[in-house]
Amino acid sequence: MPTDAERACFEAGIKFGSLYHQFAGTPVSPDSAESLGQAMEEAIENQPHCVDVTVDVRTDRIADELAAQSADYTELTGRFLDVEMRIQYAGVTVRTAMEMEDDYPLMKLLTVEE
Amino acid sequence: MPTDAERACFEAGIKFGSLYHQFAGTPVSPDSAESLGQAMEEAIENQPHCVDVTVDVRTDRIADELAAQSADYTELTGRFLDVEMRIQYAGVTVRTAMEMEDDYPLMKLLTVEE
Amino acid sequence: MPTDAERACFEAGIKFGSLYHQFAGTPVSPDSAESLGQAMEEAIENQPHCVDVTVDVRTDRIADELAAQSADYTELTGRFLDVEMRIQYAGVTVRTAMEMEDDYPLMKLLTVEE
Amino acid sequence: MPTDAERACFEAGIKFGSLYHQFAGTPVSPDSAESLGQAMEEAIENQPHCVDVTVDVRTDRIADELAAQSADYTELTGRFLDVEMRIQYAGVTVRTAMEMEDDYPLMKLLTVEE
Repeated sequence: MPTDAERACFEAGIKFGSLYHQFAGTPVSPDSAESLGQAMEEAIENQPHCVDVTVDVRTDRIADELAAQSADYTELTGRFLDVEMRIQYAGVTVRTAMEMEDDYPLMKLLTVEE
Repeated sequence: MPTDAERACFEAGIKFGSLYHQFAGTPVSPDSAESLGQAMEEAIENQPHCVDVTVDVRTDRIADELAAQSADYTELTGRFLDVEMRIQYAGVTVRTAMEMEDDYPLMKLLTVEE
Repeated sequence: MPTDAERACFEAGIKFGSLYHQFAGTPVSPDSAESLGQAMEEAIENQPHCVDVTVDVRTDRIADELAAQSADYTELTGRFLDVEMRIQYAGVTVRTAMEMEDDYPLMKLLTVEE
Repeated sequence: MPTDAERACFEAGIKFGSLYHQFAGTPVSPDSAESLGQAMEEAIENQPHCVDVTVDVRTDRIADELAAQSADYTELTGRFLDVEMRIQYAGVTVRTAMEMEDDYPLMKLLTVEE
């Protein structure tokens, strides 16, 4: 049988995959970044065992992208996101984050505390 | 060759399909409805020719759904959305809306004005 | 009142926005491109007034992208898609296509025939 | 530091959240169920550490839904999906499944084997 800590980590992964694939592709600009980040936080916090989600939609990186293209908006993707989450399951607290690792938006398990 | 009015209607349709299929499936509760609606409005207003989007995420209908199920959140779908949009293309203004028609969330072309 | 041709163009736009924003962000590689394209076609053909959808997921462009990055898959986005659609509404046939125009995946209204 | 088993469970959760929220809301009918299921399998198998995904899009349940509504297609949601996945990370094999538990599509961690 999986342990509570393993179940907590599974739950943490679900939230990350959900957040990313629900919102990837959303039209985004520096002006709309804040409302999108807030909606992402509140949407995923609805999911079971999800205590806290922090999403920083990186307006600096979006602005850099827009400077190099013709349209004045782009699509949300991993390099525009810094995310932290805290999940609690059966007394286990899991902290996770997503950050760019070279060119890949890596979802990381930071700590698992019982 | 398509007319400007026809092109304006095509643009209006794109915005509606985008809004619906980007956000359908998002975890939503009465408490998170407002931030989701605002993010939907601002995201789609980024798209070309899109002047104004109004999204009312229907907390009354979400509450009714939650009363009949075990989880305390649900997934965004058409019956929780009232949407109005205004698109302008080459001097043509198109107004559109989405509302429930019996059990189907119908996207409607309201007016086309040159 | 909008004309039948205008309504047909609105319907055509809905299908394009739906296709793009439902599937943007899907993990894709040259090997999985064919099944994804077929699923996109059949999914959108379910929608009302949608007679035919052809999706070519461009494995050549995906392979170019993979050659320049560390991961062996990427996310579906407009530059990996060539799409054609035929919509019929009240006797009006609308043909549409999506292709790259410089760096932007432009959805185009090709012909409107009554 | 998280264990390899915990990391494997986190990876397994990511795949489940991705699969669900990428494809929830897709227009689906009994005729298009098979191509959608295959695309879901192949898309998620692209993700790191994902060895095998099996998706059964339940045409029986879709047919029941269509019998009770006006449209001849519906939107993909959890009750139309039976999913099994196998993830391998650093020598740990994780098996997961999604099935309906009363009215909720529960994602379950089945086994964790080192």
